[in-house]
Amino acid sequence: MGRAAGVSVEDRIVDPARVVDALRELRALTGDAHGAQRLAWTPTWARAREWLRDRLGGSPVVVDLDEAGNLWATLPGQRPDSLVIGSHLDSIPQGGWLDGCLGVLAGAEVLRALAARGTPAVTLKLVDWADEEGVRFGGQSMYGSATVAGALDPESLVAARDSDGVRFADAARAFGVDLAAASRSRARLADVRSYLELHIEQGPVLEGLGLPLGVVTGAVGIERHALRLQGMAGHAGSTPMSARHDALCAGAAIALEARALAVGLDGRATTGEMTVQPGLATVIPRTVDMTVDLRHERPDVLADLLAQTRDAAARIAEQEAVSLSMREVLQIAPTAFDESLIGLAADVVAELTERPAHLMPTGALHDAAQLAGAGVPAVMLFVRSRGGISHSPAEDTDPQDLELAVKALANLVERVLRRL
Amino acid sequence: MGRAAGVSVEDRIVDPARVVDALRELRALTGDAHGAQRLAWTPTWARAREWLRDRLGGSPVVVDLDEAGNLWATLPGQRPDSLVIGSHLDSIPQGGWLDGCLGVLAGAEVLRALAARGTPAVTLKLVDWADEEGVRFGGQSMYGSATVAGALDPESLVAARDSDGVRFADAARAFGVDLAAASRSRARLADVRSYLELHIEQGPVLEGLGLPLGVVTGAVGIERHALRLQGMAGHAGSTPMSARHDALCAGAAIALEARALAVGLDGRATTGEMTVQPGLATVIPRTVDMTVDLRHERPDVLADLLAQTRDAAARIAEQEAVSLSMREVLQIAPTAFDESLIGLAADVVAELTERPAHLMPTGALHDAAQLAGAGVPAVMLFVRSRGGISHSPAEDTDPQDLELAVKALANLVERVLRRL
Repeated sequence: MGRAAGVSVEDRIVDPARVVDALRELRALTGDAHGAQRLAWTPTWARAREWLRDRLGGSPVVVDLDEAGNLWATLPGQRPDSLVIGSHLDSIPQGGWLDGCLGVLAGAEVLRALAARGTPAVTLKLVDWADEEGVRFGGQSMYGSATVAGALDPESLVAARDSDGVRFADAARAFGVDLAAASRSRARLADVRSYLELHIEQGPVLEGLGLPLGVVTGAVGIERHALRLQGMAGHAGSTPMSARHDALCAGAAIALEARALAVGLDGRATTGEMTVQPGLATVIPRTVDMTVDLRHERPDVLADLLAQTRDAAARIAEQEAVSLSMREVLQIAPTAFDESLIGLAADVVAELTERPAHLMPTGALHDAAQLAGAGVPAVMLFVRSRGGISHSPAEDTDPQDLELAVKALANLVERVLRRL
Repeated sequence: MGRAAGVSVEDRIVDPARVVDALRELRALTGDAHGAQRLAWTPTWARAREWLRDRLGGSPVVVDLDEAGNLWATLPGQRPDSLVIGSHLDSIPQGGWLDGCLGVLAGAEVLRALAARGTPAVTLKLVDWADEEGVRFGGQSMYGSATVAGALDPESLVAARDSDGVRFADAARAFGVDLAAASRSRARLADVRSYLELHIEQGPVLEGLGLPLGVVTGAVGIERHALRLQGMAGHAGSTPMSARHDALCAGAAIALEARALAVGLDGRATTGEMTVQPGLATVIPRTVDMTVDLRHERPDVLADLLAQTRDAAARIAEQEAVSLSMREVLQIAPTAFDESLIGLAADVVAELTERPAHLMPTGALHDAAQLAGAGVPAVMLFVRSRGGISHSPAEDTDPQDLELAVKALANLVERVLRRL
């Protein structure tokens, strides 16, 4: 990190190529033939953060850890009012080289260039949220941002264990984090005026449109339900079609109907799990357990999609003469990002791409939604993903797109700073 | 077993109540709280057969084992031409109290009564087929009847092992059976002029019609196929509905379409197995493995049902943008029973029930189909099953129905004997 005094003109300019180089360096340092391995609360994650600290370190930028284990780099401004750029270095096991760390390293480059220009009017911060992926301890994703946002009580995770029986509390303590005190990190939200996050899309929309960048208008809400269909086992040969209570046919019809309803309402529906009992070729299925995950960016439409899916499931169960039980697994309200920041981001993207900006919700979860949920004006930029693939070693984005995305983030920061 | 000389008039009459008593005795001897336990090639099966030998034994009936391990009881007639009554004592683990043994014990009672009348014009035989269920050694059902019928080379089973690693060849040897010599049992087919089998329906058709008895016109053919649908995993939130390659939606549509085709052609279609990879609520299914079991009594319609199901599966796979592979697992041609015997059986059933006999195919596999396949004129009688339930300790039939079924078998034997 260059110093404010005695720097060259070039130092003051954001250099997108440096970000691509840094991403490659991080990949070599913390990945292997099977992909990224920066699982939170592991030595590899620690190595990634140590490497990030080395890149960020040095006056005037101050690097520290909050009580929840989030890593902050602060460039103090003339006022405490702050603009925060955030994302996460942690990855799933065998993950991609861009998910999360693109946003952190792009933010670090912006911070470096701004630090070279001297003390800014407002404070600029970069945050590397802890454990966004939530893979190791029971699936609590966005641990760090949800804790700071006050949406998660970290003490509720004290007893969570990983597959080796290690307690979350013990793994966190090894990183200097006391879960009982982690909620004190909420103080970090004070003075935050805007939150910006750059992320790969992790979907095929931008590629399909032939656009490198998109502006995210908010995070979809989720209604995830577990359904159990209980029919009656019977002999595949001796039971006439009209006398069956076939749990699989009921489940199949519900999966297809939920999809049709989602298509009709411009939402999303996914049946990702389906298990069949007894699961023998010659026996009519007695029991099917399945999930239906419904998503939409508008709360009223999401509620409508759920109600229609419930009605359809009940109607199909009756038609198929099987019983149905339906249990809520996860419910997340849609989060809208800030209208004004969306407008600025759209301007930036339109200028860089010379086409109108594409506005889209994110169907996946992101830390930015936690900030927005806590009342912080927030927006996200998406850069297109090759083939829409993510959470896979095959995850990729063209270097030109990555550089354009870094430029977009830098330009957006400048626009926002002008208004704070 | 009474002797031909010095017997009372009552001895010469078939007593259906004795069969119900015998079934209960066998249940007490070879079942437990979890159902029948006469798994072939086990001590419990041996106990059942020893008990049967005791009931059958004594001049003029000769009891012996053929080279395949089938148990025969022969009442020699004036001619070697023979009428054979058959079924099986073996059961699945935790099976029902009637499946198989009803036919054997009803046949034993008919044999007893006829023996009491003196030497018949033709030879009468009862056979207890070995290992009809085929549960213990790799799923080869109808081992004994298929061997005698020449449809199975028993040497092909030498290396088959049960779940404890015991070889079929060794288990059979403990029962005096040398698999290498078992096909010599085919000689038992010589002189067989007719084959009759009484069995519980194991389905709900007769109960639905309010009829105690039915006449079986043949065994349906089976086309069982394993399908693999290969799509692409994707994020349930970030992948638009239009960009998906959802293996589960394809599999669901195929299961429902196969069913609709079977209903339209008056056949049967069952998807009993379906496994989903990766099987996570938030991931669009990449791979589905499923079975489709198609059945029909007419070979041309079965072929049509298969062709239409193949076409539909290919069309659906294309629509869903997934790849499809389809592999034959089992193919059994439909077997028609003997027209003349069907007519006699229908007369007997109509007389006893004072209603026209219901003619129906069997969707399940039975030893009679092996005999028919080998060219022996054969027919089966069905007696209704409570709730259509079988292969379960809950399997049951009203005692009045059981007695009526024994009478029907006895009357049918008399009719057939008159014509031989």
